[in-house]
Amino acid sequence: MAVGVRALAFDVFGTVVDYRSSIILEGLAWNEQKGISVDWSEFADAWRGQYRPNMDRVMSGELPWMNIDRLHRMALDELLVRFEIADAFTEAEKQRLNQVWHRLRPWGDSIPGLSRMRQTYTLATLSNGNVALLANMAKHSGLPWDVILSAELIRAYKPDPAVYKAAAEFLGCEPGQVMMVAAHENDLLAAKAAGMKTALILRPLEFGFNRPFHVSQPLSYDFVANDLCHLADQILD
Amino acid sequence: MAVGVRALAFDVFGTVVDYRSSIILEGLAWNEQKGISVDWSEFADAWRGQYRPNMDRVMSGELPWMNIDRLHRMALDELLVRFEIADAFTEAEKQRLNQVWHRLRPWGDSIPGLSRMRQTYTLATLSNGNVALLANMAKHSGLPWDVILSAELIRAYKPDPAVYKAAAEFLGCEPGQVMMVAAHENDLLAAKAAGMKTALILRPLEFGFNRPFHVSQPLSYDFVANDLCHLADQILD
Repeated sequence: MAVGVRALAFDVFGTVVDYRSSIILEGLAWNEQKGISVDWSEFADAWRGQYRPNMDRVMSGELPWMNIDRLHRMALDELLVRFEIADAFTEAEKQRLNQVWHRLRPWGDSIPGLSRMRQTYTLATLSNGNVALLANMAKHSGLPWDVILSAELIRAYKPDPAVYKAAAEFLGCEPGQVMMVAAHENDLLAAKAAGMKTALILRPLEFGFNRPFHVSQPLSYDFVANDLCHLADQILD
Repeated sequence: MAVGVRALAFDVFGTVVDYRSSIILEGLAWNEQKGISVDWSEFADAWRGQYRPNMDRVMSGELPWMNIDRLHRMALDELLVRFEIADAFTEAEKQRLNQVWHRLRPWGDSIPGLSRMRQTYTLATLSNGNVALLANMAKHSGLPWDVILSAELIRAYKPDPAVYKAAAEFLGCEPGQVMMVAAHENDLLAAKAAGMKTALILRPLEFGFNRPFHVSQPLSYDFVANDLCHLADQILD
């Protein structure tokens, strides 16, 4: 039981959905349709690789405010050139490709785990993904959120402390009544610094298999769980 | 069919939920529990009566930013004195009484109508009620929202044009791809001025029975519906 916790705030990319395999699967379909032969695992890693640096450029003021859809598109346009496939896609197809992030597939445990926890807790997203992206993803996959919260709402990006503070306020909670659930330690450590409870979800496959998997500070979190069903086991009576 | 519309944005108080009878029902239970004899229809009307003036005081700068929970509580404290029952309630009971707005009951057509429309459209709240209030209400009654949007997110109150503009942006839509659904003409006219489509829901019982009911500008809206099921009939194939 998570004493005093009323709401759970979830990181989404990597924690709830498997962006890497989702992008690879859609990419392989494009290979077939377009007669191209892109290595989509490499493409997915490169795309995701631009995520943090681009958010940091927004937060430093080097770039004006842009939501994640726009940052994804900026990165996509560069990658299409780098992978030498820019001419293979029409503008409408590029838009569809960029929206793959709205169609990311949940890890197998996500919907069963969330559905169980929703009986007892208010479930919110707390993602750097923009509201429309998160809403479309939920509608596409049936993710049972009570509230879609996004760093976009205050035009900042995690791990900016303001994001966690605003989330607790919107949820009508003290920070200590909210538990951040994430697969990424920097996210949890920032949430903890903001006064939230924390739960680490182990996602050793987030970056693909054959990758080293390491937890730096396993004792820093209120809960550590193998997946969302395992978290439900720990925080439900 | 609502051509080009992707998302529906709903006013909540009066449009989706029947605040008046909800407050009366809980009030009658308090009468019994406390041995008091308040006229809760009068109380409900007086409470709701302070809603618009208090939001206007916030928007004019006379009051600092306060969300609806706090405005409701400010009004409640005055009313408890005016109705001479302030001493009958403990602080915890006053908090519970104030939270009646988190437990408002949907009109009978709301959940069936929303559930049908959700198959085709993204359903968002767009209420002056705060996020936590709307989320708790949805959880309490099973209202099937995709996204909880509130004027609180940008610290303003409808009919401020910024609220409609922000809602469309968060939904990833052009204003014309969003239809505002409301029982109140000032809300719809402001949404229309912001470029949204509009649907008027007729709620002749919002203020109780034996009240005159009048629509000022019935030709100003894209749709006029008796209730949310009737709207679904009109905008679904």
